[in-house]
Amino acid sequence: MSNRAILLIHCPDQKGLISIITKFLWDRNANVVDLDEHADTELGVFFCRVEWEAEDGLDQKRLEEQFQAEIADRYEMIWKVYFTKDKTRMGLFVSKSNHCLYDILFRAQQKGWPFELPLIISNHESNQQIAERFDIPFFAFEVTPENRAEVEKQQIGLLQEYQVDFIVLARYMQILSPSFVKQFPNQIINIHHSFLPAFPGARPYHQAYERGVKIIGATSHYVTEDLDAGPIIEQDVVKISHKDEVADLVRKGQDLEKIVLSRAIWAHIHRKVLPYGNKTIIFD
Amino acid sequence: MSNRAILLIHCPDQKGLISIITKFLWDRNANVVDLDEHADTELGVFFCRVEWEAEDGLDQKRLEEQFQAEIADRYEMIWKVYFTKDKTRMGLFVSKSNHCLYDILFRAQQKGWPFELPLIISNHESNQQIAERFDIPFFAFEVTPENRAEVEKQQIGLLQEYQVDFIVLARYMQILSPSFVKQFPNQIINIHHSFLPAFPGARPYHQAYERGVKIIGATSHYVTEDLDAGPIIEQDVVKISHKDEVADLVRKGQDLEKIVLSRAIWAHIHRKVLPYGNKTIIFD
Amino acid sequence: MSNRAILLIHCPDQKGLISIITKFLWDRNANVVDLDEHADTELGVFFCRVEWEAEDGLDQKRLEEQFQAEIADRYEMIWKVYFTKDKTRMGLFVSKSNHCLYDILFRAQQKGWPFELPLIISNHESNQQIAERFDIPFFAFEVTPENRAEVEKQQIGLLQEYQVDFIVLARYMQILSPSFVKQFPNQIINIHHSFLPAFPGARPYHQAYERGVKIIGATSHYVTEDLDAGPIIEQDVVKISHKDEVADLVRKGQDLEKIVLSRAIWAHIHRKVLPYGNKTIIFD
Amino acid sequence: MSNRAILLIHCPDQKGLISIITKFLWDRNANVVDLDEHADTELGVFFCRVEWEAEDGLDQKRLEEQFQAEIADRYEMIWKVYFTKDKTRMGLFVSKSNHCLYDILFRAQQKGWPFELPLIISNHESNQQIAERFDIPFFAFEVTPENRAEVEKQQIGLLQEYQVDFIVLARYMQILSPSFVKQFPNQIINIHHSFLPAFPGARPYHQAYERGVKIIGATSHYVTEDLDAGPIIEQDVVKISHKDEVADLVRKGQDLEKIVLSRAIWAHIHRKVLPYGNKTIIFD
Repeated sequence: MSNRAILLIHCPDQKGLISIITKFLWDRNANVVDLDEHADTELGVFFCRVEWEAEDGLDQKRLEEQFQAEIADRYEMIWKVYFTKDKTRMGLFVSKSNHCLYDILFRAQQKGWPFELPLIISNHESNQQIAERFDIPFFAFEVTPENRAEVEKQQIGLLQEYQVDFIVLARYMQILSPSFVKQFPNQIINIHHSFLPAFPGARPYHQAYERGVKIIGATSHYVTEDLDAGPIIEQDVVKISHKDEVADLVRKGQDLEKIVLSRAIWAHIHRKVLPYGNKTIIFD
Repeated sequence: MSNRAILLIHCPDQKGLISIITKFLWDRNANVVDLDEHADTELGVFFCRVEWEAEDGLDQKRLEEQFQAEIADRYEMIWKVYFTKDKTRMGLFVSKSNHCLYDILFRAQQKGWPFELPLIISNHESNQQIAERFDIPFFAFEVTPENRAEVEKQQIGLLQEYQVDFIVLARYMQILSPSFVKQFPNQIINIHHSFLPAFPGARPYHQAYERGVKIIGATSHYVTEDLDAGPIIEQDVVKISHKDEVADLVRKGQDLEKIVLSRAIWAHIHRKVLPYGNKTIIFD
Repeated sequence: MSNRAILLIHCPDQKGLISIITKFLWDRNANVVDLDEHADTELGVFFCRVEWEAEDGLDQKRLEEQFQAEIADRYEMIWKVYFTKDKTRMGLFVSKSNHCLYDILFRAQQKGWPFELPLIISNHESNQQIAERFDIPFFAFEVTPENRAEVEKQQIGLLQEYQVDFIVLARYMQILSPSFVKQFPNQIINIHHSFLPAFPGARPYHQAYERGVKIIGATSHYVTEDLDAGPIIEQDVVKISHKDEVADLVRKGQDLEKIVLSRAIWAHIHRKVLPYGNKTIIFD
Repeated sequence: MSNRAILLIHCPDQKGLISIITKFLWDRNANVVDLDEHADTELGVFFCRVEWEAEDGLDQKRLEEQFQAEIADRYEMIWKVYFTKDKTRMGLFVSKSNHCLYDILFRAQQKGWPFELPLIISNHESNQQIAERFDIPFFAFEVTPENRAEVEKQQIGLLQEYQVDFIVLARYMQILSPSFVKQFPNQIINIHHSFLPAFPGARPYHQAYERGVKIIGATSHYVTEDLDAGPIIEQDVVKISHKDEVADLVRKGQDLEKIVLSRAIWAHIHRKVLPYGNKTIIFD
């Protein structure tokens, strides 16, 4: 696998930005393999993702300094460059449900899923054995209203120790505190089992059953301080009928949750998501 | 086309109901071509739809009396029998948008859509010309808060005069009064341009755009006194992306609205919908 | 979990069949919880699935004898009754790919998936370790054109020894011989990675890429002697674009294969599939 | 509505192309509102679509000459620039079916569908009245094997007289001759009522019914000399079940055909389709 550089940018929109960015790269002999831009004309904001072959001897630090000095400062760019040789590290949070856990354990071993899974954190011990089967360190915490702050402190310690880059809440049934969330802005991916904004909060399949909807959904989003209200990364739905009881909704929905969450993870680790305000740009 | 009888029933669930119903029909030499039942074990309610070839000389009234006396009374059935030779008559309400209007005008002329469209009612004159092209009487009313009660009275008069069986609100932008709705229980089909219960009320595409959802939907439901909260008949969704502005959502959504509304109408006129409480059984 | 009886029937269509069947069950005090019938008017064939609560002391053998004598003989029925307390046993065949393998291993442990997985058979050793992690006996055979007959004999021996009821080919890359297939009529479920009848045979994702289709699919079907031509149980598709290379088709397709195969297995083990000719009736 | 320029390009891939193209436009003070590129690494071909605000006094001819001289010649580009003020003109071919006809007539009147519909050509008179209702000139030809060449000559004459830019076969049941097709390379859009390459040729719904598939589809593609084998623009599918007879497949499929064809037309008239070989790049 080659090492590729991926540049994510947003800045006030103006003429010539693509030309300026691509000229900078061309001058450094970069072979751009993918460029995707989006201009939000209403907001007046320019979004861009550029991917190029990073040469072997590339001085990454120098490139970044030059980009900042020659371009980013002038055009007020918020930007970051990633390199595919640096595998991103996931901290996985689970509770008792394990359909998403299994799915992620499977993908962690698949070619084409460039992430590492150094640890699993849970508020139950029930999935310890599964983690052991896959040789992933597993840490269970009993969380109560009283000890939540202390538990979160320990969890953050573990995330630092294991050098985690982003967090996936794979049906983790605890609400993280605002102070926890603030430490990982747009770095915590949650899966909610409804097509948000319908049925936020607890027991969405029961809510869906009560309302008599004909489709159910799942939504993967970045976690913000507002419950189930963060920037949406991916959604999908499946049809149901009057024959489906809550248990059927759960069964059909779980297959959806796995797929929707995995697509969000895929987009995130391939640097195809650019959050802005409470929305996301998804470069595909 | 043969004349078929369709029997819709719901009653407290108990053993033997299918046997009892089918025996009644078999004794009368009826050839059952389709039977679909559903037992809601939680509610303890039995739902059934039976379709059979109605013979030429069938004494419809006598059949109904016998069914009531021999079976329905005993098992506390709520039931109704329909005959496909009696084409159902639609009263169509529209405002300025005409994508659903066109779609229904087209279907009214298609084989396999057994309904009649005797009149169109609007709160705008803008679609008068289209109605004329299709030779359908068109009645426009200017509705204000002051004259709404009087207008509704006239509209109900027209619906009676034209012997309308059910009403379709094809993006009709007026809210009908509770007294109007009460006169047509589960006989008014609305199309709402969101996947309810998300984005009820006004401007759902704008709401969807603001929230940054990745799918938009449409919902067809029976109108009740609570806005956008009646029994859902049909829903579907379409994927959108960050590239889609509100105008794109409207465009993609309108194609969805047409399809979802037409499927709801199809189910309704083929007596495949059995509303119960705030939900529907859809026999397919 | 209660024990339920499920009766699958097909026979020449005629009046009164539902009445006759339900009367037979009612006379035995059976509480029918689900009845689904389908009459193919073109073929003149009646299909039916009835599910009822089987009482504790039920004499299964006697019920079957009575049904045969009183009804089945007279109406030329092909029928079979299943009981949910008898868990069906799957023989799982895999090759090197393991996405479907993982998925089935996961489901084998889930509530609501009433099947047992006593053994895995493969033509490669590569998935041995996974099988061990889940404590499932794993048998690898090196298959060559010369030894195929002998290998199949040994495999059939294993299937008998482990009392397997049906076989799932989870991306098993060997073609089974006609004599093998004949021993398991409508009991071998395959997943093919295209929307059949498009792209049968080898390398369907490459075929799809070459043709430039905008959707790819997966098809689960019963295996017959004709390659990829047996009765279809379940199909689904996913959208692709010109940006997708073959590797992307494989990745997106694998998620689809898992879901489609699992839905087919679900339908099969819940006795919701009634094969007839080269088609299937799927009672849902 | 502003006037926008859209540039479609393909050429051998090499470094710096985006930079070169965007620099050319920036030098002319063009405000690029959308740029989408795709590099097919296997073929070594670069594809690009650029859209910018065309200023009022723009000298279109000069721009084209400069682009050819300064860039296109050097990089062996095949390219074309379109302007949104020049509405494209559709020649619509129909037979007896009119579901697609109605759909296109409706869209021709909708905002946001920038095309003109100067004439309808048919091999039947049955849709004459509909055309008249919408005030579109309608020309019916009785086509026989003997007169086909002569009829096509007259049709081409009409297409020239009415200055048609592209042709839509909206369920036109005649096969156009190779010589006709050659005159409109990638300018004839067909809708075929199956998910190609499954069920090409005649009566695909009957073929689908016979095969017992669980999904049916529709495919819109450019017409080439090989029947139903041209570059695919858009495909979609809908689920069916064993309950669906051929008439149901037709009904469900027709709704799909309309949508799929309309999406292909949308992409074509917005210059979002770049055919290459027997495939298409769809810029979205």
